[in-house]
Amino acid sequence: RYLHFCKLPGRVMGIRLLRFTSVVIIVLLLVAGALTALLPTIKDDKMPHLRREAKPQGQSALDSFTLIMQTYNRTDLLLKLLNHYQAIPHLHKVIVVWNNIGEKIPEEMWNSLGPHPVPVVFKVQTVNRMRNRLQNFPELETKAVLMMDDDTLVSAHDLAFAFSVWQQFPEHIVGFVPRKHISTPSGVYSYGSFELQNPGFGNGDQYSMVLIGAAFFHSGYLEDFQRQPEAVYALIDETQNCDDIAMNFLVAKHTGKPSGVFVKPVDIRNLEKDTNSGYSGMWHRAEHLLQRSYCVNKLVNIYDGMPLKYSNIMISQFGFPNYANHKNKM
Amino acid sequence: RYLHFCKLPGRVMGIRLLRFTSVVIIVLLLVAGALTALLPTIKDDKMPHLRREAKPQGQSALDSFTLIMQTYNRTDLLLKLLNHYQAIPHLHKVIVVWNNIGEKIPEEMWNSLGPHPVPVVFKVQTVNRMRNRLQNFPELETKAVLMMDDDTLVSAHDLAFAFSVWQQFPEHIVGFVPRKHISTPSGVYSYGSFELQNPGFGNGDQYSMVLIGAAFFHSGYLEDFQRQPEAVYALIDETQNCDDIAMNFLVAKHTGKPSGVFVKPVDIRNLEKDTNSGYSGMWHRAEHLLQRSYCVNKLVNIYDGMPLKYSNIMISQFGFPNYANHKNKM
Repeated sequence: RYLHFCKLPGRVMGIRLLRFTSVVIIVLLLVAGALTALLPTIKDDKMPHLRREAKPQGQSALDSFTLIMQTYNRTDLLLKLLNHYQAIPHLHKVIVVWNNIGEKIPEEMWNSLGPHPVPVVFKVQTVNRMRNRLQNFPELETKAVLMMDDDTLVSAHDLAFAFSVWQQFPEHIVGFVPRKHISTPSGVYSYGSFELQNPGFGNGDQYSMVLIGAAFFHSGYLEDFQRQPEAVYALIDETQNCDDIAMNFLVAKHTGKPSGVFVKPVDIRNLEKDTNSGYSGMWHRAEHLLQRSYCVNKLVNIYDGMPLKYSNIMISQFGFPNYANHKNKM
Repeated sequence: RYLHFCKLPGRVMGIRLLRFTSVVIIVLLLVAGALTALLPTIKDDKMPHLRREAKPQGQSALDSFTLIMQTYNRTDLLLKLLNHYQAIPHLHKVIVVWNNIGEKIPEEMWNSLGPHPVPVVFKVQTVNRMRNRLQNFPELETKAVLMMDDDTLVSAHDLAFAFSVWQQFPEHIVGFVPRKHISTPSGVYSYGSFELQNPGFGNGDQYSMVLIGAAFFHSGYLEDFQRQPEAVYALIDETQNCDDIAMNFLVAKHTGKPSGVFVKPVDIRNLEKDTNSGYSGMWHRAEHLLQRSYCVNKLVNIYDGMPLKYSNIMISQFGFPNYANHKNKM
């Protein structure tokens, strides 16, 4: 009883102490939380390898996009294009995939010419691979990716419009370069563009792919790409080609619909002739198109079927650039 | 016990009788079902007031559409257009809304010039109303409606393509004639086309309506139209106008999105100059456009808000009529 009596004040005191301690801890947590919210953001251009933040600062993750541009042996074009692309409306950040192995990134020069409208991150690569641009970069904070080849100039008007179209078709690759496959009686597929026979579904042509070298797509597809059969990576590495065809297969399989939505560009230009390096791009190789047909057939084997679907929808911007571009004889 | 014993054979016999009767009934039902499936279909053109069938014969309810064409004082144009429209791919049936009050339908002549590719139903009206074409006709069996003015000629290519677009956007009005409203600082709305100021959402123009006089839409919207506030019918009757604006309000409210999807027509013509009747259509009335602005404002009152939303998506057919109509300088 004596013990019990002695424990009583102890227990009462213990409870009061417990309450007091709890209150103190809660207050400390609140203070800590408030302080965390007030911390300044870490500048991306000082830290090329940024850990993933929960939400992009400034623009919302849904209303902005990240430009991913892979570059090899055309730094002069890259810098020219960066001056253009860094000012595109709704751009959140630029990720430059630096395939110039062993060469220093132009970071000093870039910073000396600041400030820049958006952060630009240079991702140094260890091997010059075509599929380097399809990594799931931790710096990527937006739902939308804009992927551009380092020799392709698309006008800001086209990009702003295509981004708005992507927002209405977020599960598709929305871009400016349509391509198609056709099947032949032998069952062997061929890859090509308008010069190839129409697939024969009604009149007009069809496309079954939209190339990712000038397109918007959902960043989730970069995650998906990391989970593909090894044979896909081997194929892309073997050909140094076809990563875009593989992405179209991936998207078509995922949606069960045509992978892409084609937006007809008003102003799209290839600047490769302008480069000092003289490097003129993979698609000039003699075997380039044959390789792509080869890739289509290999991917059908790997995925055990042809998931690509045809579309003939061509989207343009109503009333732009000609304010009556929809007028008719009526 | 005696009773029980006596009931036994009776019960056994009763059960056997019950089983036998059940078997007979089931066999009879199966035979009846088989016979029903073998019955010939009732020809629509002999019975202008057909009761609703469960499924259209021939083409599936999803893969075909019903043309609804209202006509007043332009029977020559009507018949010219019918020769064209009756042969459109995927057409299931034509419903002619006969606004020529007191005048006989040209049924004899029509039948004498048979056979026809699809059934054509003449719906005799008692009052010449603009909104007669928006009834929920029992003859309507397809999910899709194509509504055409009786002086508008759209090519089969355009219609086939627009139908395929509608199938991808079934909750929208998919058609060839875009219009818009604009708001003014006073809060009063104006109705118009490209000649009107752009609404100011980025560059280029926007549309917020697609007129139903040359468009595909879901037949369910005809059902919905029967359930609108009385004031809507009064407005349409008062102006003999604006039924199409009312439909766009209805669809926009229903979807929360832009009501229409504009398909740029390759070949659309107005034939009103060709009519022998000299009747030139309601839109030539001096007050026509002012009426439509008036209707927009009235409908905003009736629906207590502006449900119309803007779009700048313009859809064309890839590779048609020019097989490289998507080619660019790249």
